[in-house]
Amino acid sequence: MIHDECGLFGIYGHADASRLTYFGLYAQQHRGQESAGIVSIDEEGAYHSYKGMGLVPDVFEEKHLQALPGTIAVGHVRYSTTGRPSLANAQPLHVNYKGKDIAIAHNGNLVNTFELRRALEDKGAIFRGTSDTEVIMHLFASELCRGGDMLEAVRRTCMQLKGAFCLIFLMEDTMVCVRDPFGFHPLSIGHLDGALVAASETCAFDLMDAEYERSLKPGEIYVASSEGESSQMLDGIPARPRQCIFELIYFARPDSYIYGEQVYTCRKNMGFQLAHESTPDVDFVMPFPDSGVYPAVGFAQCAELPYEHAMIRNHYVGRTFIQPSQSMRSFGVRVKINPVRAMIDGKRICIVDDSIVRGTTMITRVKKLRELGAKEVHIRISCPPVRHPCFYGIDFASPKELIAANYTLEEIQKKLDVDSLHYLSIDGLLRSVMHNDSYCLACFNGEYPVPPCRQCGKHQLEK
Amino acid sequence: MIHDECGLFGIYGHADASRLTYFGLYAQQHRGQESAGIVSIDEEGAYHSYKGMGLVPDVFEEKHLQALPGTIAVGHVRYSTTGRPSLANAQPLHVNYKGKDIAIAHNGNLVNTFELRRALEDKGAIFRGTSDTEVIMHLFASELCRGGDMLEAVRRTCMQLKGAFCLIFLMEDTMVCVRDPFGFHPLSIGHLDGALVAASETCAFDLMDAEYERSLKPGEIYVASSEGESSQMLDGIPARPRQCIFELIYFARPDSYIYGEQVYTCRKNMGFQLAHESTPDVDFVMPFPDSGVYPAVGFAQCAELPYEHAMIRNHYVGRTFIQPSQSMRSFGVRVKINPVRAMIDGKRICIVDDSIVRGTTMITRVKKLRELGAKEVHIRISCPPVRHPCFYGIDFASPKELIAANYTLEEIQKKLDVDSLHYLSIDGLLRSVMHNDSYCLACFNGEYPVPPCRQCGKHQLEK
Amino acid sequence: MIHDECGLFGIYGHADASRLTYFGLYAQQHRGQESAGIVSIDEEGAYHSYKGMGLVPDVFEEKHLQALPGTIAVGHVRYSTTGRPSLANAQPLHVNYKGKDIAIAHNGNLVNTFELRRALEDKGAIFRGTSDTEVIMHLFASELCRGGDMLEAVRRTCMQLKGAFCLIFLMEDTMVCVRDPFGFHPLSIGHLDGALVAASETCAFDLMDAEYERSLKPGEIYVASSEGESSQMLDGIPARPRQCIFELIYFARPDSYIYGEQVYTCRKNMGFQLAHESTPDVDFVMPFPDSGVYPAVGFAQCAELPYEHAMIRNHYVGRTFIQPSQSMRSFGVRVKINPVRAMIDGKRICIVDDSIVRGTTMITRVKKLRELGAKEVHIRISCPPVRHPCFYGIDFASPKELIAANYTLEEIQKKLDVDSLHYLSIDGLLRSVMHNDSYCLACFNGEYPVPPCRQCGKHQLEK
Amino acid sequence: MIHDECGLFGIYGHADASRLTYFGLYAQQHRGQESAGIVSIDEEGAYHSYKGMGLVPDVFEEKHLQALPGTIAVGHVRYSTTGRPSLANAQPLHVNYKGKDIAIAHNGNLVNTFELRRALEDKGAIFRGTSDTEVIMHLFASELCRGGDMLEAVRRTCMQLKGAFCLIFLMEDTMVCVRDPFGFHPLSIGHLDGALVAASETCAFDLMDAEYERSLKPGEIYVASSEGESSQMLDGIPARPRQCIFELIYFARPDSYIYGEQVYTCRKNMGFQLAHESTPDVDFVMPFPDSGVYPAVGFAQCAELPYEHAMIRNHYVGRTFIQPSQSMRSFGVRVKINPVRAMIDGKRICIVDDSIVRGTTMITRVKKLRELGAKEVHIRISCPPVRHPCFYGIDFASPKELIAANYTLEEIQKKLDVDSLHYLSIDGLLRSVMHNDSYCLACFNGEYPVPPCRQCGKHQLEK
Repeated sequence: MIHDECGLFGIYGHADASRLTYFGLYAQQHRGQESAGIVSIDEEGAYHSYKGMGLVPDVFEEKHLQALPGTIAVGHVRYSTTGRPSLANAQPLHVNYKGKDIAIAHNGNLVNTFELRRALEDKGAIFRGTSDTEVIMHLFASELCRGGDMLEAVRRTCMQLKGAFCLIFLMEDTMVCVRDPFGFHPLSIGHLDGALVAASETCAFDLMDAEYERSLKPGEIYVASSEGESSQMLDGIPARPRQCIFELIYFARPDSYIYGEQVYTCRKNMGFQLAHESTPDVDFVMPFPDSGVYPAVGFAQCAELPYEHAMIRNHYVGRTFIQPSQSMRSFGVRVKINPVRAMIDGKRICIVDDSIVRGTTMITRVKKLRELGAKEVHIRISCPPVRHPCFYGIDFASPKELIAANYTLEEIQKKLDVDSLHYLSIDGLLRSVMHNDSYCLACFNGEYPVPPCRQCGKHQLEK
Repeated sequence: MIHDECGLFGIYGHADASRLTYFGLYAQQHRGQESAGIVSIDEEGAYHSYKGMGLVPDVFEEKHLQALPGTIAVGHVRYSTTGRPSLANAQPLHVNYKGKDIAIAHNGNLVNTFELRRALEDKGAIFRGTSDTEVIMHLFASELCRGGDMLEAVRRTCMQLKGAFCLIFLMEDTMVCVRDPFGFHPLSIGHLDGALVAASETCAFDLMDAEYERSLKPGEIYVASSEGESSQMLDGIPARPRQCIFELIYFARPDSYIYGEQVYTCRKNMGFQLAHESTPDVDFVMPFPDSGVYPAVGFAQCAELPYEHAMIRNHYVGRTFIQPSQSMRSFGVRVKINPVRAMIDGKRICIVDDSIVRGTTMITRVKKLRELGAKEVHIRISCPPVRHPCFYGIDFASPKELIAANYTLEEIQKKLDVDSLHYLSIDGLLRSVMHNDSYCLACFNGEYPVPPCRQCGKHQLEK
Repeated sequence: MIHDECGLFGIYGHADASRLTYFGLYAQQHRGQESAGIVSIDEEGAYHSYKGMGLVPDVFEEKHLQALPGTIAVGHVRYSTTGRPSLANAQPLHVNYKGKDIAIAHNGNLVNTFELRRALEDKGAIFRGTSDTEVIMHLFASELCRGGDMLEAVRRTCMQLKGAFCLIFLMEDTMVCVRDPFGFHPLSIGHLDGALVAASETCAFDLMDAEYERSLKPGEIYVASSEGESSQMLDGIPARPRQCIFELIYFARPDSYIYGEQVYTCRKNMGFQLAHESTPDVDFVMPFPDSGVYPAVGFAQCAELPYEHAMIRNHYVGRTFIQPSQSMRSFGVRVKINPVRAMIDGKRICIVDDSIVRGTTMITRVKKLRELGAKEVHIRISCPPVRHPCFYGIDFASPKELIAANYTLEEIQKKLDVDSLHYLSIDGLLRSVMHNDSYCLACFNGEYPVPPCRQCGKHQLEK
Repeated sequence: MIHDECGLFGIYGHADASRLTYFGLYAQQHRGQESAGIVSIDEEGAYHSYKGMGLVPDVFEEKHLQALPGTIAVGHVRYSTTGRPSLANAQPLHVNYKGKDIAIAHNGNLVNTFELRRALEDKGAIFRGTSDTEVIMHLFASELCRGGDMLEAVRRTCMQLKGAFCLIFLMEDTMVCVRDPFGFHPLSIGHLDGALVAASETCAFDLMDAEYERSLKPGEIYVASSEGESSQMLDGIPARPRQCIFELIYFARPDSYIYGEQVYTCRKNMGFQLAHESTPDVDFVMPFPDSGVYPAVGFAQCAELPYEHAMIRNHYVGRTFIQPSQSMRSFGVRVKINPVRAMIDGKRICIVDDSIVRGTTMITRVKKLRELGAKEVHIRISCPPVRHPCFYGIDFASPKELIAANYTLEEIQKKLDVDSLHYLSIDGLLRSVMHNDSYCLACFNGEYPVPPCRQCGKHQLEK
């Protein structure tokens, strides 16, 4: 599973703005490892920016932070998408328009990029990269050109966007945060020493002891300027939000709050529900680390089975390593996690994991467990089968590759060579969260809140 | 706790020798992050070596492996010691003596380095670094000079060494592995496609699907040459080995076998014993990740308490990050692990960890849990109090800093501000392992199998 | 003197296109050290680009060339300008417009950037950097949008540009080279193995044994496409070109042909004319290397005085070095060139150099010669006094700093502390070249062929 | 021609010791580009060292100088030799012997390395690299071990060395500089702000405005310690020194003094003598830059012929560049220097260069001149034919490759395809210098002042 996700962080009114933004990105590194960037505004209103490819601690050195002075800053980490990774797509996007600096950081995926871009190009706009953000920037500049103040331009820009967007705008001395009307992706606010902080996930607040306040509402526009903070709403907010439930299942850090939900608790509940739905007769429960740990803990508690941590993760796998030779091809999997042989031999094992996308990794791992003597292997997945593509930011494999979109449960069980297989039901999933009527379930049931229009065009564009 | 530990890997008779050594080091990266090196012997007997400061994947690029041809190779990862980190101390040590190349890789700590070095210097030997290995190399060259073959020289060299040593020697086309008579540190052998492999820990074998055979015996000399493999013993092997039990408690990877023991099983047993000795009345058990996970799992099973994984580790902390400003000093701790707030508030918690050395980190973490609303915090430690320094390779803090060497249990409990504190007893610890009469317990009871002689001299040397 | 100059290279129809472009830039490295970039078009029409900050051999590695396949390529080296050096300003500029890739490389300086940019911004255009090239790209896209083919769009774009521009456009499978109507900067064409090559200077052709054909004419548009090569002219070509004579005096490499003139010969002639105008009674003539060498050689021949090479240039000064401490501040000058003491003591010396801009370096060097015992120091400058700013690409110091704009000859002579000082006359300068009615002399006489309009606005923009 | 030469710099008693050493090495970069290193001694007597592969400005960053505190420092740059370049061979060599730090920097080549090394190995010494310096370090440690003070040990060490050596020793707070009894290589001393400075060439002094005092005498030992400076002589100084005249011909920088001779003056004199011996009837004289410039200047003056600088050197060639493709193989030569076409066509040219070793480059360059239309090409070489190998530090090609050792003048002239060829006579060479009875001429006449003993053994060692 590849995510078209990103992490945002903004801070308004703190002497250490860029340094705190650095740490805010560091805490959200799991949301994007391809590139990182920060834009700051100094005391005299001048904008400074620095971006680079790679992890936050590799992109930024002390000297870069020194060159990002001021009390206002916005940062962004970007995940590798289907498009070619490139510095041209790194964010925040920072341009100069009529002598004014503008910076925009974006998380999410629009479904009308193609139309918007073509319309802009027909008016003469030119593009350097392939990101949605560049389209949003062009729209914003057009709206500024049409007249009205920054907030009006933000509002008119957002009205034209279809799909998922969490945005942070910087212009002059104002910072504006927006969540799209369906609230597809998370954005929360808090305060630190009187300064406003905004982040995709609250783990960024914890790191700096900022006080978490609340999730922005779907469709909310939150403004910080020299005149203080204020909130207003976009027009046409739908009755029911459609927040991405995959953030709770897999993507967010378990110690974060998002959408006002506590992620760890939700994941543990999913394990609980899963055990309620189907508990096999086994010697113990174990996760595939790290994502399976939290539902496995809930599963073991509910099923009253021993929890074992019998797959060991190598702490150093984040780094690229030299390719093994042809005869060592299966190394890749083993480099990341390795089973504890003594725990496997002769055992009936229930494995809890958060999802199966293509299934290839799962097949290899189960095969290894069988080689080590596992008597029975049962798989429990803490979400329903993923059968439909996501157009709002989670970049699953293409429908052709999604194992659940192409095979029945029995066929998958056979392919994986496991003794039993159960996916959490949609009902069980919704029982695991608090606000159970506010989530997008399109990847499970194909009910898209915003129809994907001509997305193929977009993909052609990116080729 | 800083370890003066290292990781060894050797392979004899495989076409992919240096590449497999690379992966053997990668799997043992936790045994040493300061430097990494590989020496290989090509088909014509020429030696090639490459060493660098940093992690294995950062030190070696594809071109370096290309420049390490041949079917015989030895690799080494080195931990940061009290001495200044320096390329001069990186291993394997590779020299030319009388037209022959010699390479030595060493894990462990000698107690008579000072005397040996002074004696060698009186005969004119000069030293580039401060490592024991350079002393061993000089002794070995002296013994070669005195006459006899390589094996005799290895044997006579080892007879002069007091303390802990696992060694791999390369000379001409021969590889010799040795464990010291007390077997302080682990070294195991296996086979892969007919080639001999040797490693400090068997997790290196798993990565490459090599077959684990057995631990070398304390005092064993294992030889691989063009004439095949053979084994012999050093003279004067003591009746009872003294293997470092801290490898089982903390240092080794849980999926490894060392000394013929399975590490995960030992650690889980320690948790079991600990629960037998003292189970508090709490809502749940949780570890400080990652080292506390395995005893915590055992503890929870024995105590029949829920296991929670409520401290979240940031996967990217391996990398150095920019210093926080003065006002963010406590960041350091939070960057590494962060508690799940929702799980802590109002709860009675039992934390299982593997050790307390100075106690400072524990104090900060408990304080944070109290701030988040923990009602009770109970600490259970899966080893006895560390009261004595180690002279054989585990570099604890100095005795002055060891909290258990300076305070009573009650005082420590008060300093940590916890509701109860219990350390595993020595008896409980020994019940957790199989070969319970073969371990060194000096750091717990002060009974040193090899008297530390003039170690102060050594430390003066390193200043 | 800081130059706002650049080097261009283009090649159409050669299997080694990007590699030859690399060498074409390497040969023209003196035209720009800030950044380097190459765009190539592969067999299927896909565009590939790579740019970086620094020197050509530092920016490009083998792997980058591998990733620039195809038979068509354009490269650019950029000099450090008054604007902040930034990857956003590096060239060629490569964008996507309506699904088509466009790349533009530009050498020169427009005088109506400010107006053009404001007009574009009023139509909604946004800018990432501060370069003229981005403005040209926007105009070109607008013209494409208005309809007509690429050549028409090029033509209509160029009609709007005022000032100096040598341009190479790439679109689809067509390459278009243009020189502005006054021909401010050089651009020559040649052939190699049947492929068209274009370069700012012919030293790029020599390196690859390409055959030099001719200089593009001022106002010429030269097209290479799948249909072959063809030439046409812009409208409104002035009767008299105004080519930058400073390229001949200082900027171009002496082994190049530009504007159809041979640079070495021109410079030697300037020395000849200079000696005709004013030969002092001295022991020998010497240059300040390297730029003074060629007029000094001509001067010595004409004056029948010994030529000495008594100032030694350090070959390694291209690289940045660590700052000297406060007490070593004058090091900077000495690091670059150092006089041969034995040649200076007691001697009457005539120094030939190509220009004096601020005069500070000259003052320091003369002072050093006096310290070493020079009896007399006479300065001869191979161009007239620079009294006026250049708006077309040569970025002299600001008028306030130009020594010749603020002091009389006598005052300068006194400031430099020299026994005599003579600048080449404008007449002498024109006698040194072949096409003496085709040059811009604005920096000497203030007669600007294209009036600088609101250039201050431009500079404000760049601040 | 590859040189086994190095550059030394030492400073005693200056607050900026390591920074000045950095600049002292920078000025002498031409003496060695393979590696660079500095050892400094801080106020408390602790030694600090840093070495790296590459050019001085690439090896050292500001932080490295910060980590080299103190008022005493020694630096070294090393040339690429026949042995494999390796950090193990980089200098200064810094070891610890009996608790004392010792550092040695060496320039030159011993002829009894093999014997010395074997004898040391028979006593148990082990070697990491293949440099003479390591042998000298072992001898020095042995002598210290035998008793007596540092100076006695230096003296006894030097008595055992045969061949060429300039040495700087550091031990405790003492710096000792030594030149071998024949004075094969240069070493001069001076003062700066009261501090002693020592350097292979005085261009290092010029850069920092240090005052040059004199060349050390052959066999002189010059000591700087807390008790001041003093000088003494080695025993057995031969009546006649044998200083390497190739330093004057080619290796040293023209602005330096070495052996008390001014290099520029000597080279110009060589050109003078050369013109006296054989002046062809040509249109002008030109050098192959840069080494041919100085004799060409003298030649032109004596012959009363115009001097032209018609071969242009690319200033950026110091850096490695990407390999040209197969079809561009002859690029290498053209990348470095390029002839000015207009000057060559139809001309009779006399080229002055300092030496021909293999002849291959000369052949390619003459061929190019012929292609460009040169009517006649005459070559004048400012030294006699090199017919014998050097055992003291100048690493000419092997005798088999030396063109002058294998062919007669006529044959060479034919091979080069030139109209005439003349080498400076030995007499002419000696007339060009002041101390004409003090030079080693072995490479010209085969008269070796120190017989090369078993040097083959040494070369076998290095393979």
